[in-house]
Amino acid sequence: MHGTVRSPNFENLAGSTDRSLSADDGRAMHDFVSELYPICRSITGEGVRKTLNLILEHIPLTICEVPSGLQVFDWTVPLEWNIRDAYIKNSAGERIVDFRASNLHVVGYSVPVHARMGLSELREHLFSNPEQPDWIPYRTSYYKPTWGFCLPHHQLLALPEDEYEVYIDSSLRPGHLTYGELLLRGRSSDEVLISCHVCHPSLCNDNLSGIAVATALAERLGSMDLRYSYRFLFIPGTIGSITWAAIRRAHLGKIKHGFVLTCVGDAGSPTYKASRGGNAEIDRAWTYVLKQSGEAFDIQPFSPFGYDERQYCSPGLDLPVGCFMRTPHGQFPEYHTSADDLDLVCASSLNDSLTKALTTIDVIEHNRSYLNQKPFCEPKLGDYGLYSMVGGQSAGDYQMALLWLLNMSDGENSLLDIAARCNLPWETIKEALRALSEAGLLKPVDKPS
Amino acid sequence: MHGTVRSPNFENLAGSTDRSLSADDGRAMHDFVSELYPICRSITGEGVRKTLNLILEHIPLTICEVPSGLQVFDWTVPLEWNIRDAYIKNSAGERIVDFRASNLHVVGYSVPVHARMGLSELREHLFSNPEQPDWIPYRTSYYKPTWGFCLPHHQLLALPEDEYEVYIDSSLRPGHLTYGELLLRGRSSDEVLISCHVCHPSLCNDNLSGIAVATALAERLGSMDLRYSYRFLFIPGTIGSITWAAIRRAHLGKIKHGFVLTCVGDAGSPTYKASRGGNAEIDRAWTYVLKQSGEAFDIQPFSPFGYDERQYCSPGLDLPVGCFMRTPHGQFPEYHTSADDLDLVCASSLNDSLTKALTTIDVIEHNRSYLNQKPFCEPKLGDYGLYSMVGGQSAGDYQMALLWLLNMSDGENSLLDIAARCNLPWETIKEALRALSEAGLLKPVDKPS
Amino acid sequence: MHGTVRSPNFENLAGSTDRSLSADDGRAMHDFVSELYPICRSITGEGVRKTLNLILEHIPLTICEVPSGLQVFDWTVPLEWNIRDAYIKNSAGERIVDFRASNLHVVGYSVPVHARMGLSELREHLFSNPEQPDWIPYRTSYYKPTWGFCLPHHQLLALPEDEYEVYIDSSLRPGHLTYGELLLRGRSSDEVLISCHVCHPSLCNDNLSGIAVATALAERLGSMDLRYSYRFLFIPGTIGSITWAAIRRAHLGKIKHGFVLTCVGDAGSPTYKASRGGNAEIDRAWTYVLKQSGEAFDIQPFSPFGYDERQYCSPGLDLPVGCFMRTPHGQFPEYHTSADDLDLVCASSLNDSLTKALTTIDVIEHNRSYLNQKPFCEPKLGDYGLYSMVGGQSAGDYQMALLWLLNMSDGENSLLDIAARCNLPWETIKEALRALSEAGLLKPVDKPS
Repeated sequence: MHGTVRSPNFENLAGSTDRSLSADDGRAMHDFVSELYPICRSITGEGVRKTLNLILEHIPLTICEVPSGLQVFDWTVPLEWNIRDAYIKNSAGERIVDFRASNLHVVGYSVPVHARMGLSELREHLFSNPEQPDWIPYRTSYYKPTWGFCLPHHQLLALPEDEYEVYIDSSLRPGHLTYGELLLRGRSSDEVLISCHVCHPSLCNDNLSGIAVATALAERLGSMDLRYSYRFLFIPGTIGSITWAAIRRAHLGKIKHGFVLTCVGDAGSPTYKASRGGNAEIDRAWTYVLKQSGEAFDIQPFSPFGYDERQYCSPGLDLPVGCFMRTPHGQFPEYHTSADDLDLVCASSLNDSLTKALTTIDVIEHNRSYLNQKPFCEPKLGDYGLYSMVGGQSAGDYQMALLWLLNMSDGENSLLDIAARCNLPWETIKEALRALSEAGLLKPVDKPS
Repeated sequence: MHGTVRSPNFENLAGSTDRSLSADDGRAMHDFVSELYPICRSITGEGVRKTLNLILEHIPLTICEVPSGLQVFDWTVPLEWNIRDAYIKNSAGERIVDFRASNLHVVGYSVPVHARMGLSELREHLFSNPEQPDWIPYRTSYYKPTWGFCLPHHQLLALPEDEYEVYIDSSLRPGHLTYGELLLRGRSSDEVLISCHVCHPSLCNDNLSGIAVATALAERLGSMDLRYSYRFLFIPGTIGSITWAAIRRAHLGKIKHGFVLTCVGDAGSPTYKASRGGNAEIDRAWTYVLKQSGEAFDIQPFSPFGYDERQYCSPGLDLPVGCFMRTPHGQFPEYHTSADDLDLVCASSLNDSLTKALTTIDVIEHNRSYLNQKPFCEPKLGDYGLYSMVGGQSAGDYQMALLWLLNMSDGENSLLDIAARCNLPWETIKEALRALSEAGLLKPVDKPS
Repeated sequence: MHGTVRSPNFENLAGSTDRSLSADDGRAMHDFVSELYPICRSITGEGVRKTLNLILEHIPLTICEVPSGLQVFDWTVPLEWNIRDAYIKNSAGERIVDFRASNLHVVGYSVPVHARMGLSELREHLFSNPEQPDWIPYRTSYYKPTWGFCLPHHQLLALPEDEYEVYIDSSLRPGHLTYGELLLRGRSSDEVLISCHVCHPSLCNDNLSGIAVATALAERLGSMDLRYSYRFLFIPGTIGSITWAAIRRAHLGKIKHGFVLTCVGDAGSPTYKASRGGNAEIDRAWTYVLKQSGEAFDIQPFSPFGYDERQYCSPGLDLPVGCFMRTPHGQFPEYHTSADDLDLVCASSLNDSLTKALTTIDVIEHNRSYLNQKPFCEPKLGDYGLYSMVGGQSAGDYQMALLWLLNMSDGENSLLDIAARCNLPWETIKEALRALSEAGLLKPVDKPS
């Protein structure tokens, strides 16, 4: 009978990446960010398509097109926006604000305009940030038809009285909302949702870092034998997740864990924002992984502001989905400005974010409850080759992991519960689990998938 | 169907008092304290009646008389005590201790006496406080028939050998225990109990401040359309609340919330002592209000010592009744001495105590659970005129309150739960609630009373 | 009817020891440690028998012999080990390592050897601790047949090349595992388990201190009328508790509370390690007692490493058994070395450990739930002679204990719950309980055993 029990799968996601993850991976992710950087993305349009096509070069994404006008919960899929050129010229015919220099110069979803006007009329359409006077701020107006330009506050203040020519060669027409979806099938049809947004123009940390890490994560998981199925979403923020959730509503019950990836490339320490429930398995896994790292980290409670976890954690969906970041949005000065550029994200942070996401997934993959098969007093570990100490010495991490696993494996505590309680490294826990399983001392409560 | 749902009552108790509460209110309360100050109160007698009659000039109190000898739970309503004059004269016939100078000079409930005696016999009947040698202490002997005088310790030490005449013109006869009760009827017969004691002689903070704030609170609530009914008690401490509870025992189930008001006029910061359960709605409301004030405050756990919350929180009654104070009894040196006088209470503290009590009542009045009517992802707030931000900016308190209310209104969380969790001002919560209710996005779980 | 209710037993275990416990008791325990010190104990053999026979001079222990080879859960009772002499001689015939000087010199359970060898071969059998180079470390090899000597690291380093004679006159033969057990029968057959190990050779704090305090505790309890039955175990560590639990398995359900005593003689402050559940009555009792002492203390969560609580708290047994220590094992440098000698343990610490154990037992003995017989408002304490204050004064500990007991005795809270919540001394709680019980104001929820 013993031989019929399937051994737990000890493939080591994070460990295998210790081998393969290196500075090269960080540089490759940074290169991908650089490749995506110039594209003018918005919540719809060619920028999103170009972005998804570049991701498609790495992972076998399905690109989905949802028509404008479709009702998705309380929202409607908007018109598709595209832009070719835009500028403000002075009376000398010089492009003083030029979309070709930075796509942040145009307010996202600006309607087309071609007109001449004086400074005072123009200023009603100009946006700057006095607190960061050298940087172009990022502005959009998705649902109120208008047009506008963004520029550094210093430049705004220096604009002379003049007759200006404003030109925005954009179009806002029925079309599609585009998003990318990838399902990696595991042994179970239960899913882990990993979501990032693809709707920001030339902004690196708040957008592209999440895309790069999610793409690398999908590449990595794609070659593994997985317990869970993994669903990756590359979607425009808010309207994209709402659209996806509306289309997939009947399917959402399959999602057992999930997290949003955003702002994962800056030099700050890791931050995990918990799901609405606050104590989901994914919340405890991230907390354990960040705590085990021995480095600074922050765990934030859920709040209904932020990224697409707002939608996944709405009361009608209430999915166990958190959000992994480094410095949270709004807490770094470059946020939503032209200074969120290629210098703000660094290869080592991208690499560290990927590693921590892989480790957390490894925890979720292997987390289950075991039953101590010799629960009356301790088993005689020496008889199983598991007692390496000369009597009288103190126990190391591995020996402690053996004892903790045996003591807590009463069916009530999962591996993660035990790991978090004894605060031992995940690799040590898994090594001890493997040894105890091979010795027949621990068996899973349920048949592993 | 939509039109049949009654809108929540957005009348703003605290807000309306922002308009009307002012330094004048504090001064009016201090004036009332001054008016009540000279009266010699005890747990029975003319002093209580005079006090209640002065309160009656402000609010339509019912004055109740309970006869001596009535059994009330484990107690008996005592004989009625009255006093007209008292003194100690020296052999020169000088009143060296004179009730007319301070009613604290006589131990409360002293039996009548007229005798001559030497210093050593007299001293057995004299009480002073060596730690506060300049002040007259406050002493009573309700249940052990005796007589005594209180005087400053310095004076006691300086008393020469002499033949003294002691005289207390008091009476202790079958009569009544007197208390005042006021019921303000709200839409519901469920009640909020607000209780203060009226049994202390010339003591301002410990007694009169509570009477003044409770009276002003009743005046204020009297002109409002209220959800709950409010029962105000102006009662002698201990025996008064016991008597009332014994008489009203069948009625006590109606009391859903309550608090005792005492020591609410000194310059100290606010203190709330929680009810026996420690997590009643009234406890959480006071905690939220004090926390939101942004000023220093203290939340104390329940203990079975203090004021009439001792009785309301006895195990057989176990009412959700806390106690609001500024500096707690026994923690200011003037407590139970002649220094608890008109200088110890200040108009601004009385005013602040009234404001905080009104805000807490406003929380209780409006606290109920709502259901998000568009629970799948966020509703498109812009379509309801509720999205004021240009995309890309961070959210202010009002916008956050909208999001928190929508996210948490799953029927499990009340307004107070949400307000405490997001730590936003009550007025902002109510403003957001009103907007969401008017937009049809939130509806009460139960029909509002 | 009143007379038929049996009064709680107010015999005061700790209080009575206040009277009798004194410096003399500490000295007597230290003397007992000194008497036990020279004996060479191991997990089996004559050393354990001698030790138990010395304990038998104090308390009526039953000495149990379990034959080698008996299967006990996952373990087998080992061969019995005895040793008469052992040495390492240099080529000059001098005993440079001599068992007669310290029994720590021989690795416990060393097989017999008589051989000559050079330094390099010898060194494979020598153990020292470079971190404590002057002390002999303590080593055993119960389950892997080998032989070895322990010596100070300085001595090891100084050993010259030479031909050495090694001699260990030991025997390892079928025999018995020996342990001592004492049951003090109380009014109830429910038991409190008190366990200490008897398997260490000349080590004072880690072994003998626990034996001395457990013996004194049993002596003390033996003369008392007890609610619980008390089961004392003097057993070899690990294999002893496993053997006992296997033999007594059907009986283990009787054990309602328990603790291991070890390392209770050093000068460090008290430490209590909680049981596996972490919130057992015994855990809360020890926590309360240590907190009430007003001295430094430490409460540690359960971990599956340590002494025999490892076995009692294995998942299949899961007994509510903690561990009382002063400085925990491994946290004092002398641990498991020749420096854990008679100087490390002091009479005052032994005395303090005994006192705290007695107080904790007193808490457990008297802990039950009472019902306030006058639960509606406060009873009129003066009528029962329980109100000593002149009105207007603040309450002392005793008066507060009366009020807390009355308020919390609703059947939900035990004495220990109340004592811990109000943080008053146990003697005061008991004094107030006695007064309230005699007044008929409190009655036990269940008939006391």
